[in-house]
Amino acid sequence: MQIIEVKVTPLAVPDVPLANTKGVHQTVFLRSLIEVVTSNGIVGLSETYGAKRTLKGLNQVAPLLEGLDPYDLRDLRRRIDSAIPANRGINAATALTDHKLADVVYSAFEIAMLDIQGKSIGRPLFDLLGGAVRKSIPFGGYLFFKFAKQDLTFGPDIMGEVMTPDALIEQAKEFRGKHGFQSWKLKGGVLAPDLEIETMLKLRETFPHHPLRIDPMGAWTVETAKQVVDKLDGVLEYLEDPCRGMDDMARLSAMIDMPLATNLVVVEFEQIIEAVRKDAVQIVLADHHYWRGATGVSHLGEICRAASLGVSMHSNSHLGVSLAAMCHVAAATPSLTYDCDTHYAWTTKDIVQGGPPRFDAGKLRVPEGPGLGVELDQEAVAELHDLYNRAMMVDRDDTDEMLKYVPDFVRKVPRW
Amino acid sequence: MQIIEVKVTPLAVPDVPLANTKGVHQTVFLRSLIEVVTSNGIVGLSETYGAKRTLKGLNQVAPLLEGLDPYDLRDLRRRIDSAIPANRGINAATALTDHKLADVVYSAFEIAMLDIQGKSIGRPLFDLLGGAVRKSIPFGGYLFFKFAKQDLTFGPDIMGEVMTPDALIEQAKEFRGKHGFQSWKLKGGVLAPDLEIETMLKLRETFPHHPLRIDPMGAWTVETAKQVVDKLDGVLEYLEDPCRGMDDMARLSAMIDMPLATNLVVVEFEQIIEAVRKDAVQIVLADHHYWRGATGVSHLGEICRAASLGVSMHSNSHLGVSLAAMCHVAAATPSLTYDCDTHYAWTTKDIVQGGPPRFDAGKLRVPEGPGLGVELDQEAVAELHDLYNRAMMVDRDDTDEMLKYVPDFVRKVPRW
Repeated sequence: MQIIEVKVTPLAVPDVPLANTKGVHQTVFLRSLIEVVTSNGIVGLSETYGAKRTLKGLNQVAPLLEGLDPYDLRDLRRRIDSAIPANRGINAATALTDHKLADVVYSAFEIAMLDIQGKSIGRPLFDLLGGAVRKSIPFGGYLFFKFAKQDLTFGPDIMGEVMTPDALIEQAKEFRGKHGFQSWKLKGGVLAPDLEIETMLKLRETFPHHPLRIDPMGAWTVETAKQVVDKLDGVLEYLEDPCRGMDDMARLSAMIDMPLATNLVVVEFEQIIEAVRKDAVQIVLADHHYWRGATGVSHLGEICRAASLGVSMHSNSHLGVSLAAMCHVAAATPSLTYDCDTHYAWTTKDIVQGGPPRFDAGKLRVPEGPGLGVELDQEAVAELHDLYNRAMMVDRDDTDEMLKYVPDFVRKVPRW
Repeated sequence: MQIIEVKVTPLAVPDVPLANTKGVHQTVFLRSLIEVVTSNGIVGLSETYGAKRTLKGLNQVAPLLEGLDPYDLRDLRRRIDSAIPANRGINAATALTDHKLADVVYSAFEIAMLDIQGKSIGRPLFDLLGGAVRKSIPFGGYLFFKFAKQDLTFGPDIMGEVMTPDALIEQAKEFRGKHGFQSWKLKGGVLAPDLEIETMLKLRETFPHHPLRIDPMGAWTVETAKQVVDKLDGVLEYLEDPCRGMDDMARLSAMIDMPLATNLVVVEFEQIIEAVRKDAVQIVLADHHYWRGATGVSHLGEICRAASLGVSMHSNSHLGVSLAAMCHVAAATPSLTYDCDTHYAWTTKDIVQGGPPRFDAGKLRVPEGPGLGVELDQEAVAELHDLYNRAMMVDRDDTDEMLKYVPDFVRKVPRW
């Protein structure tokens, strides 16, 4: 069994204007669909970022995978490293999708190779990672302040404007009714800290027993973050990336008891060790899309366990192939004990057969495989690829999009 | 496919009086052979310690494995944890074989389950760990001071007495001629430090370009170790466990540039983090027999890479099933870049078909599988099991054995 063909298909998915401290989601979000075909006719699937740089990396590597043994993840890595020089720097402007490209490309193809392995032996992907510690994955409701969508060319709006604490509570109630979420994360850094504190207190009132988190994406100074912590003491399960940079996180951490989580200051294995030395964070967010695939998250889980760090799961906007992979990874990572993040409740179209999976009390059953356990709806793939061509968007730029809603918007880190 | 039968067979293997700081090897060394049979007739193999406590743990768990899916390593762990309460303490008197029994038992059965997986899909074991970064594993020659064997009841001696620097050099030359080793490790802590320094200098003279190591097993005070380091500066590749305890290792490490390796102060994942915080060691010795199996060593390798620690491989006296597993693990652990330790050159009998594997320039080819790639010679198994029954030895006690050679021997840590 060897790889004979690799197909990379850029997709655009209608999105709604979800706000964050950098700006707002564009009218579509971009994804890449990867189909890896073997000599014995198995097709391995994967999904990752669709921005220009990732797409270029995927396409650079794709022709080099001919003849690769789908079990040989080391050979995959060697082939990628020969095509993409290791880039360990972090491009702060474009964050995750623009750094450590080799890891991102590796992650994408690894999932496809594991899907092939699972399909070839009739086993779910989690069995290739040592088996499942859980087969039902709890996700938290991912709450966003948002604008009412102006440009409906590529798809309708959801919920209209949500720009006050009260409107946000209505959003949470709607999600609760629809998906049954039992924990909540607010994408913060959008309104002034006092309003976001008010929002979290109202969420606490509405859901007295649900774990709550807020992620301002580094929008706060250490001093502001300290004030927020004082007011939300006992309210938050953890505080995600209140400040930018390892040292500011460490400075805040030294002042407070509330656990700090991150997907910004710890995105490389070496940074886990740095974070431990500086006691900068207490929870690391896993994401197989950039933590060197499913096996990378597996290692991450063990490193964090050794270091007494918690593990949670990060999400970007995504489709059902990524969702399935996230479920398998969560199933096979014992120390991932927090509810996972997912943007999936905001995803309006999908490419997998059988319609979107349904959350039951906020949980998803891990597909039983073989492999990822999902099959493509090729008509839906064609539709979203067509949208990619029509949308004429090749990169994510939330700040640029924000100017359509707030013409004098200026991106500032920290903002408050 | 599920497990229907587990067989644990204690074995005794004729040994020779190899000296260390605790005493000397007994007339036999003890091993446990594990055979795990599945419903579809596959037999997974593994080998581990044969001392009383390990054997009891293996036999406690064995009947609980009926019905286990050989892919479900998490379920294996759950079953073990239900039978053996986690024991994180370290019993200094009996060191590795007597602590963290659950990890040791897990490790043993994990290898057998991976062997089953590999056999069921026709793949070498290393493919289940992500593929091989190397298929030829370099081993170092493991040199020992030794007595002339007195009691030949269970097997002959090898080489007679080796108790001087010059005799040790002859031992190395003999191993070099026979196995082609290209690096050397001396089990130190036996002669006075000056004599062991002399030995290392003579090894350097004899093999000008071979990496050299010495492992006194914590026999030296920090001050003695510092003096040894001064005299062997530029001679040693690394110094293994010169002192006992994390804090003494850290104290020494702060005084010197020579890398310190350990299989004594870092034997738990949590201790890697402690060692990093204290900068106590620079190289960790992996061993799938106690580092939670092959997957545990895989995690260890990634943790060490993240922490900029080197990885080498530890050995106890062992047979060919363990040797095969060591090769697969080394093949699939990218950061394991030092030559591996093995006692195998001292092993006089084996239980695998086809005779002992031959070292070529100190290297062994990783068996190509399926699974471990070794099959049992059941006659040889029966012979060594018979010897186990006849030898009437159920535990390792090097200190007790030493009294036969040095009647006034007193175990002291540190000795010098």
